[in-house]
Amino acid sequence: MRVSVIGASAPSADATENAHEVGRLLAERGHTVVCGGLGGVMRAACRGASEAGGHTIGILPGEDRDAANEYVATAIATGLGHARNALVVLNGDAVIAVDGAGGTLSEVGLSSVYDRPIAGLGAADAPHVEAVETPAEAVDYVEARVD
Amino acid sequence: MRVSVIGASAPSADATENAHEVGRLLAERGHTVVCGGLGGVMRAACRGASEAGGHTIGILPGEDRDAANEYVATAIATGLGHARNALVVLNGDAVIAVDGAGGTLSEVGLSSVYDRPIAGLGAADAPHVEAVETPAEAVDYVEARVD
Amino acid sequence: MRVSVIGASAPSADATENAHEVGRLLAERGHTVVCGGLGGVMRAACRGASEAGGHTIGILPGEDRDAANEYVATAIATGLGHARNALVVLNGDAVIAVDGAGGTLSEVGLSSVYDRPIAGLGAADAPHVEAVETPAEAVDYVEARVD
Amino acid sequence: MRVSVIGASAPSADATENAHEVGRLLAERGHTVVCGGLGGVMRAACRGASEAGGHTIGILPGEDRDAANEYVATAIATGLGHARNALVVLNGDAVIAVDGAGGTLSEVGLSSVYDRPIAGLGAADAPHVEAVETPAEAVDYVEARVD
Repeated sequence: MRVSVIGASAPSADATENAHEVGRLLAERGHTVVCGGLGGVMRAACRGASEAGGHTIGILPGEDRDAANEYVATAIATGLGHARNALVVLNGDAVIAVDGAGGTLSEVGLSSVYDRPIAGLGAADAPHVEAVETPAEAVDYVEARVD
Repeated sequence: MRVSVIGASAPSADATENAHEVGRLLAERGHTVVCGGLGGVMRAACRGASEAGGHTIGILPGEDRDAANEYVATAIATGLGHARNALVVLNGDAVIAVDGAGGTLSEVGLSSVYDRPIAGLGAADAPHVEAVETPAEAVDYVEARVD
Repeated sequence: MRVSVIGASAPSADATENAHEVGRLLAERGHTVVCGGLGGVMRAACRGASEAGGHTIGILPGEDRDAANEYVATAIATGLGHARNALVVLNGDAVIAVDGAGGTLSEVGLSSVYDRPIAGLGAADAPHVEAVETPAEAVDYVEARVD
Repeated sequence: MRVSVIGASAPSADATENAHEVGRLLAERGHTVVCGGLGGVMRAACRGASEAGGHTIGILPGEDRDAANEYVATAIATGLGHARNALVVLNGDAVIAVDGAGGTLSEVGLSSVYDRPIAGLGAADAPHVEAVETPAEAVDYVEARVD
């Protein structure tokens, strides 16, 4: 399946390590990482997935594919600005949020709108977010919720 | 100025009354109400503004302008689905959130992304949201934050 | 009704005069001008409509409402870049094209997609475009095609 | 490089064969096919590329990835309706148009807006479109125009 990994552009060291581990686990279990294609949590998750041989899709806010981080295998330019957040969520079967501020919060909200199960690792507290403690728990959760 | 009023599609009676009062106050003070153009909080705010002689803009998710509630003066069809939430926030100078679930949460997050001051009346608790108790406090807050 | 006026950003003097006249006639007959909100044909049409007391809506590619030309009464910021062309066409009941290059051609194509009648004054030649000779003919044509 | 292949949803037999051949040639020369992900020319081009072992990206108007034709390797759901046409063009380094009506015409226009070289096989006649006679000429043309 595809899992959208969302989170901070300038994460803490812990959040970066969590995102990297989430990406690695997803790839090891055969899943594709979808993200916003830029830095921070997005880049760390792509790096983890890429190192484990997985596929990564980065859906960018701008018009230039070259803005994608170096671990994005398939970059999609949108030119939509922050409206592209909807596409990040829409293109995953489930969502894992790691840390994150306003942009991430918008994606947390959209996860509910699009009815995507979502696990949160140190992420915004919202009624539909399953708070988890470790990357493995996050991946276990989304695997259990999507057939 | 323009104020985006966001909130639940199926609000409680209290939230409906609050949204109506927010709309009325905004119009009385010369402001335009921007919203998602549909029902619930959106409709109540437009009704309040319309009854007080104010201008209302509804930015719709679908392709059909006729889906706007009857108190929208200027309906904008987008055909963008939930990605239109970004446009709702972007077209206000400030935001007032009344109640609301996932869609509203996405707009709360976008308020931070677009750097819009936001007052919340029984709305999602997020670091950048000013929690207020009454419609008048909500309108006072956004007036004080936007020149 | 609403009529989307599309065309060149840097039109000839004749095209500018045509767009101005189209805007004036539309307003005199009680119609609203919708356009992309920027310069050239867009500005001329808004100026004509505004001088005749009509309403004008400008749907902008960027995130800043202040980019609208001074004759736009209701500016809508989209942040969608050129994808906003779809919204320009979608928000008119009919389309009048005056001059124009690639961006206009995209809107001519979208007029067919969205099933909007379209009159062309020196505009791209496409099967579904009614070529007309004067602003009055353009306005007559779209009035006859929309109830 | 990536080449966006655009064209009719219900093409003639000749156009279908041309699109299939365009897809095959692109893949044989190591290029990725980008398209709107649905039927007709889009499906034929993806089929040609897929049979030759190439990568295909389908950028869909709706919210459901499953709407992609069976030869799309990476489906991107947008939920943007026809506004997604901008993304189809934006995600190619060049464009090949095969046959096509209004939707294709919008993409032909956007090719100019985004400054993408475009070859046309029985496609809309526009100043910036290089009219070619065969699939091989189309592919040769875009290869020559993009480094």
